Amino acid sequence: MTGKLYGVGTGPGDPELLTLKAVRAIGEADVLAWFAKAGGTGNGRAIVEGLLKPGMVELPLHYPVTVEIDKEHEDYKSRITAFYNASAVAVAEHLAAGHTVAILSEGDPMFYGSYMHLHVRLAGRFSTEVIPGITAMSGCWSLSGLPIVQGDDVLSVLPGTMGEEQLSRRLGDTEAAVIMKVGRNLPKIRRALSNAGRLGEAVYVERGTTPAGKSMRLSEKLDDTAPYFSLVLVPGWSGRP
Amino acid sequence: MTGKLYGVGTGPGDPELLTLKAVRAIGEADVLAWFAKAGGTGNGRAIVEGLLKPGMVELPLHYPVTVEIDKEHEDYKSRITAFYNASAVAVAEHLAAGHTVAILSEGDPMFYGSYMHLHVRLAGRFSTEVIPGITAMSGCWSLSGLPIVQGDDVLSVLPGTMGEEQLSRRLGDTEAAVIMKVGRNLPKIRRALSNAGRLGEAVYVERGTTPAGKSMRLSEKLDDTAPYFSLVLVPGWSGRP
Repeated sequence: MTGKLYGVGTGPGDPELLTLKAVRAIGEADVLAWFAKAGGTGNGRAIVEGLLKPGMVELPLHYPVTVEIDKEHEDYKSRITAFYNASAVAVAEHLAAGHTVAILSEGDPMFYGSYMHLHVRLAGRFSTEVIPGITAMSGCWSLSGLPIVQGDDVLSVLPGTMGEEQLSRRLGDTEAAVIMKVGRNLPKIRRALSNAGRLGEAVYVERGTTPAGKSMRLSEKLDDTAPYFSLVLVPGWSGRP
Repeated sequence: MTGKLYGVGTGPGDPELLTLKAVRAIGEADVLAWFAKAGGTGNGRAIVEGLLKPGMVELPLHYPVTVEIDKEHEDYKSRITAFYNASAVAVAEHLAAGHTVAILSEGDPMFYGSYMHLHVRLAGRFSTEVIPGITAMSGCWSLSGLPIVQGDDVLSVLPGTMGEEQLSRRLGDTEAAVIMKVGRNLPKIRRALSNAGRLGEAVYVERGTTPAGKSMRLSEKLDDTAPYFSLVLVPGWSGRP
């Protein structure tokens, strides 16, 4: 009998935003696997810290590169592919030995999560269950008390890395938007929002799902310093009854 | 002392997809409020059935109309607005009396949820916390084991009610899409996916977060019968390493 694979969404940061199913899966797991930068332990593991059991095997999966090499560079692609291949082999060995493995994924596993790289390599061979998690964007609009979409609104989830022209066009063509990967893209994001006539509505959220989280109207944020994982929310629902 | 208001996301259907925070909030609540069709008890309440305590006051909020009148009709708007106003008054009376009130919202409260109608009427006057929930779309792509977005993908959440031309255009202009409110719009959705060259990738999910849930390639679904709350998923992540 091979073991079962769980892809476990840990939610955005607050351990209370784990689902009951995620807690159960971690409780069943013999092996807890998590992604982190070289030398680190990662946010996913920090979120579930209180659930670790004595004797649980941990399988750290340390990215060989993060931001040192451009993502479009062949060297990045070959190294990251080799890393996912080797990680899948390490997880498969445990599964083949009959161990249940929980792979942590911050937020929701299938929504921009590293877990999906292992899922596509393993789900065909082993019994697999994906446990959804609260996304960072949902944590942020909840913290801000900001209704994001209603009725027939279109929601566009946009990376802040895209070009100003394209970002402007898309912001002008949607009821609601979430702009991810803000960081150093903030000045461009402000210009794109302004081009689309949406700057006044935009809300900036920083570390939205931690005790240090804060949110404010983007127009009231006076500097352009933002962590990579901050978000900008543009709410829809303009026709509130 | 006035009571606290919780907007509680119940997740998409499986009670194990409640968060620990949602369970705690329901445990703290003196009053449990939930939306339902006239005469019904609603899915939100069914999801938390196992958490109800003896002596808990229930406050049913029954929609005066659902699909009997067109949403753009003035009669619909005035009746639904009066309903939300009266519901807010009923909740406010409990809060003013010092009772903690949990208002249930299927999925995520700020993501197409009825709760937000009460939030905008009450959050300025009472201490309020919104507890995010797993969205139906996240429940569906997790059940299907379908990676939906990665890296710099754009995700578009589109109502199936929109016109064919606009739907076709938007499907051709995004890496990934979730089409909500499928139901009788399925033939049009198929045409729009075909127009955009995305029909082959599309996945149809029906009752995705219940024991009766199923998912299949849309191209393998031979009929056009679909419940209103079924979804069509178009995955991104075309450049998998």
